[in-house]
Amino acid sequence: MFVIMVYDVGQRRVAKVLKTGRRYLNWVQNSVMEGELSVALLEKLKMELRNVIDHDGDSVIFYTWRSERYTSRDVLGIEKNEIAMIV
Amino acid sequence: MFVIMVYDVGQRRVAKVLKTGRRYLNWVQNSVMEGELSVALLEKLKMELRNVIDHDGDSVIFYTWRSERYTSRDVLGIEKNEIAMIV
Repeated sequence: MFVIMVYDVGQRRVAKVLKTGRRYLNWVQNSVMEGELSVALLEKLKMELRNVIDHDGDSVIFYTWRSERYTSRDVLGIEKNEIAMIV
Repeated sequence: MFVIMVYDVGQRRVAKVLKTGRRYLNWVQNSVMEGELSVALLEKLKMELRNVIDHDGDSVIFYTWRSERYTSRDVLGIEKNEIAMIV
């Protein structure tokens, strides 16, 4: 399934959430990742993140679709991920 | 259509992007908004944002679907929008 993960977590946990997410998804821009994941891997990612985040203050949202790709994805400005790949 | 907007813009333009987006979409968490928009309103929002962002450094991504709602939306931690509504 196609997954978009957006997160808003305390500064101390940002690096850990980023590192965990990157093992499953592609970094898109600050606090956003996306990619194709099986149901099992998505559950694994969620389980790992549950051990990382502060459940009283942090927020991680997963949007998921069964269809392979989203209908449309438009970027205004730059595609930050390209910069990340060049650096 | 259902729209998710994620943005990663320079600090000087955050408030303006936030204010512009909020007139069209619901705030979800830091740098993320979502909501139902007609094609015409989505184009209007994009046009406004094109006048706000720095096209060499900022990034605003729109994911859009024709279907009314995304298949699934799971939150780990808290739903920040509820806090925003209470405050």
